[in-house]
Amino acid sequence: MNYYSNQISKLIEELSRLPGIGAKTAQRLAFHIINMPVDQVRSLTYAISSAKENVQYCKQCLTLTDDELCPICSSPKRDQSIIMVVENSRDLAAYEKTGKFSGVYHVLHGAISPMNGIGPEDIKLKELMTRLQKDVSEVIIATNSSLEGETTAMYISKLIKPTNIKVTRIASGVPVGGDLENIDEVTLLRALEGRVEL
Amino acid sequence: MNYYSNQISKLIEELSRLPGIGAKTAQRLAFHIINMPVDQVRSLTYAISSAKENVQYCKQCLTLTDDELCPICSSPKRDQSIIMVVENSRDLAAYEKTGKFSGVYHVLHGAISPMNGIGPEDIKLKELMTRLQKDVSEVIIATNSSLEGETTAMYISKLIKPTNIKVTRIASGVPVGGDLENIDEVTLLRALEGRVEL
Repeated sequence: MNYYSNQISKLIEELSRLPGIGAKTAQRLAFHIINMPVDQVRSLTYAISSAKENVQYCKQCLTLTDDELCPICSSPKRDQSIIMVVENSRDLAAYEKTGKFSGVYHVLHGAISPMNGIGPEDIKLKELMTRLQKDVSEVIIATNSSLEGETTAMYISKLIKPTNIKVTRIASGVPVGGDLENIDEVTLLRALEGRVEL
Repeated sequence: MNYYSNQISKLIEELSRLPGIGAKTAQRLAFHIINMPVDQVRSLTYAISSAKENVQYCKQCLTLTDDELCPICSSPKRDQSIIMVVENSRDLAAYEKTGKFSGVYHVLHGAISPMNGIGPEDIKLKELMTRLQKDVSEVIIATNSSLEGETTAMYISKLIKPTNIKVTRIASGVPVGGDLENIDEVTLLRALEGRVEL
């Protein structure tokens, strides 16, 4: 990268460490940033530092938030007895966008993945079990429909079963608007198994 | 974006202003940054601010650099009498990577584009003409092979012609390794027109 001056090379190097940012994108971003107005650059670096400094885990659901309790956990409108378990804060946001879930969440910050050496003790399961000691009527497992997500779902359901709390799993099947011919066989099979009476 | 806390939303917003970074990528980057070690976040923001503060235009070729004169312009090994005109610093880097050009550059910082309201006075042409008053034997125009690049090349060549300095244009044709059947007709025609005797 010695085709660029030191400062530019250093910036390109830092940017290309970010996920999904390759060498070419990092170059384009670096030149864009250098040509941005100073105040815009300042608000970018400020947003980065202040998010890093101030964002913390919600002490109940463990999502990333600015306060001790996230807006969802602290809202009186949410039903604290229904907990949806998700892998990360982005999945939480995805369900929040539907606007139809009125319970609360629990963010695992990962999924069990023996291949990558991630065991049950590496995700926030202990914290979930502690929450279940309060008045909880249902745990909805909304981990991804991947190998890791399914393994995690299975593990959690076995863990919760003895407590007699209802454990459910979000449905797996053909996505809405999905064209059958473009959908993989495993999904098609799942959709068939999970068929509902009309 | 109110599915996330204020600090996270602000960071996502700032990141999604960057070119080529959509809402989803910005989300992924934001969460990655929040989970990065503090010192890595610091070196990222430091690289951004210090590049913005310290990078300036080389006073001769106008590329972005840390010093008054860029390493190329200040190198005694480079032939100051051959100037390659490029649209931006990334194009300069692309030619530097070939390692075969021993002249110097001139960075226009754009190309003439009447469609976008960019005229000859909006790019660094005046600076180029000033440089030609010194001892220059050849100007190689290496603007892009796009409509804007070609327009700019044409304009510059007309501007330089009266000075009797040799003006050349980089060749246009089939890229090395290119499969003829996948190449557009305009390129094929150019390659035919520009054929050389073997």
